[in-house]
Amino acid sequence: MLGNFSYCNPTKLYFGEDSLKFLNEELPKYGAKIMLTYGGGSIKQNGIYDEVMAILKANGKTVFEDPGVMPNPTVEKLYEGCQIARQNEVDLILAVGGGSVCDYAKAVSVSAYCEEDPWDKYYLRMADVDNKIIPVGCVLTMVGTGSEMNGGAVITNHASKLKIGHVFGSNVFPKFAVLNPVFTYTLPQYQMVAGIYDIMNHITEQYFSGEDDNTSDYISEGLLRSLIHSARIAVKDPKNYEARSNIMWTATWALNTLVAMGKTTDWMVHMIGQSIGAYTDATHGMTLSAVSMAYYRHICPYGLPKFKRFAINVWNVDPAGKTDAQIAAEGLERMENWMREIGLVMNIKELGVTDDMLEGIAQGSFIMDGGYKVLTQEEIISILKASM
Amino acid sequence: MLGNFSYCNPTKLYFGEDSLKFLNEELPKYGAKIMLTYGGGSIKQNGIYDEVMAILKANGKTVFEDPGVMPNPTVEKLYEGCQIARQNEVDLILAVGGGSVCDYAKAVSVSAYCEEDPWDKYYLRMADVDNKIIPVGCVLTMVGTGSEMNGGAVITNHASKLKIGHVFGSNVFPKFAVLNPVFTYTLPQYQMVAGIYDIMNHITEQYFSGEDDNTSDYISEGLLRSLIHSARIAVKDPKNYEARSNIMWTATWALNTLVAMGKTTDWMVHMIGQSIGAYTDATHGMTLSAVSMAYYRHICPYGLPKFKRFAINVWNVDPAGKTDAQIAAEGLERMENWMREIGLVMNIKELGVTDDMLEGIAQGSFIMDGGYKVLTQEEIISILKASM
Repeated sequence: MLGNFSYCNPTKLYFGEDSLKFLNEELPKYGAKIMLTYGGGSIKQNGIYDEVMAILKANGKTVFEDPGVMPNPTVEKLYEGCQIARQNEVDLILAVGGGSVCDYAKAVSVSAYCEEDPWDKYYLRMADVDNKIIPVGCVLTMVGTGSEMNGGAVITNHASKLKIGHVFGSNVFPKFAVLNPVFTYTLPQYQMVAGIYDIMNHITEQYFSGEDDNTSDYISEGLLRSLIHSARIAVKDPKNYEARSNIMWTATWALNTLVAMGKTTDWMVHMIGQSIGAYTDATHGMTLSAVSMAYYRHICPYGLPKFKRFAINVWNVDPAGKTDAQIAAEGLERMENWMREIGLVMNIKELGVTDDMLEGIAQGSFIMDGGYKVLTQEEIISILKASM
Repeated sequence: MLGNFSYCNPTKLYFGEDSLKFLNEELPKYGAKIMLTYGGGSIKQNGIYDEVMAILKANGKTVFEDPGVMPNPTVEKLYEGCQIARQNEVDLILAVGGGSVCDYAKAVSVSAYCEEDPWDKYYLRMADVDNKIIPVGCVLTMVGTGSEMNGGAVITNHASKLKIGHVFGSNVFPKFAVLNPVFTYTLPQYQMVAGIYDIMNHITEQYFSGEDDNTSDYISEGLLRSLIHSARIAVKDPKNYEARSNIMWTATWALNTLVAMGKTTDWMVHMIGQSIGAYTDATHGMTLSAVSMAYYRHICPYGLPKFKRFAINVWNVDPAGKTDAQIAAEGLERMENWMREIGLVMNIKELGVTDDMLEGIAQGSFIMDGGYKVLTQEEIISILKASM
């Protein structure tokens, strides 16, 4: 465990088939005015909306609805949400949906009482939060981002073609989150596998950094093995509770700060993927899968011991009689096979990327320095070309 | 992930070589009266006492000292601590020491304002806490119990020959804990390896339960692999920061409720070990190591698939051409070799157990029902005999 760090994660999680009823324990802790934030309306079709509304009413709450959160929440929607929250002086934002809805709810929670433009302050300048924060609770219906137990919130600005995530402190973490694996059953397969790859990439972004021996990496390997196993089951049998529950739990622990402790962390795949998202509005997880193999094969020589370890400990590659480079390459090959097997998008053309966008996508990709290679703009373009 | 469960762990951890300075961030949150709880005085020899006192003084605190917490804190000492805490109306109990000191501090925190005998209420009757709780902070100087991030507190009653742990709710968890691996360097090797086995056994007590596929088990396997690796380094080179820091972090996550989520959990080794402790006052971790091999070999046939998985995933046993029983046995053999290699006590005679105690130890062992076999009294005696 390198350096000095602190860890605190106060979010209360309620997990399981009957977990929604625990809203009855949480709601009395907040005032009467609840902002109910959700997406495109799928929760009205699958009945979750009615269930949540019934609990809110039974707890005597006044509900201010804030529907229409899009998959990549925009800055315009953020301004709209801030107005609803501020005008009605809401006491709690209850986010019912996936990572986009949870991210958006957290962005509103810090932005509603921000006295300047929150995009400028919290995204372009990445300032610390010094205004009133509205508490957030989550009911998760889609799995992947880990947003239910962290302080991150990604917002997209289409005008400036920027998609930026700010990781806020633990006072912005959701106060509670309801995780019912059954709520994820109705999700289309495309969204499910995109979420699964988002989870995997959260783990690998943190794993592929550092040269030291670190317990966080051992935990990451365990999470990856569980995810790989359960994903194979879930794509064939989406209503397999065991698999879906393991995927849901893995998602939470993949990005709630635990596996980053004592590490530098990379995040370069997310930076490129988010830039692709700003240009194409493609599903987040697919923007990551589409560039990952080109990226990891590019940096593999710079972090060879870790890629070798990844191959052996995560993908069960037998190292006997092979060079380190061969072992590492075999690990990445097994990863690619698994990605194809579960149905991930493996090239950016399929996401709508055209040759004329490559320069802009590269420019919009923030360059990180915690991984095995600090990329140049040219290297990003070459990775994008290899991903076409 | 089986069943419905909730997870919340609000303890704030400060980790690293410079982590003690973060007391300056925590102390201002509490009133002026601090009860400083510690053990036999080793913190006066290694300088930690002076460092902590200087920070307490600089923060304008009045300190009420409560030294002399013994390795297995007694009910008499608990009564004494309650009196110090209540008479002085202390605002915070600062525990500086290992798991015994932290456990004792938590026991005092719930017992000081208990209107009846806390041993009867919180240990014999395992009642919920309904009185005022004094907040606890920890500065860890010995690693193993995970007490710094959980609600457990074990107290020993020599008169009735009972050593009982009560797992209190998250409002009894320490508010903060300082984890500086360097503070553990001066610990005698015997104590260090006892702590290492306590960690391993915390994980296996939770791992060896359930038939389902559960992400918690994958996390446990990661923690075990990290521990096995770092322990081998630490016994040869006790001042190896990397190894000691990984052991410290693994200890915290081995028993802060995470790897128990969605599981039944066993705890039978702890029940037998604690009963041995009540009879011999032996070091906790050694009471566990001394009975473990006999216990695990006894229950192995009842949980064969898990013991096979343990052998392959944790101990790298090659399963080719072997029966499941052979694979499982080879895993346990490797575990035993590792235990002998790091210098654990492997029989209870060495801890002072005599034949005439066996009946009483068996009777004092609470029988748990979450593992692969609910033991009879006769089976416990037979395990004890095999451990002599």
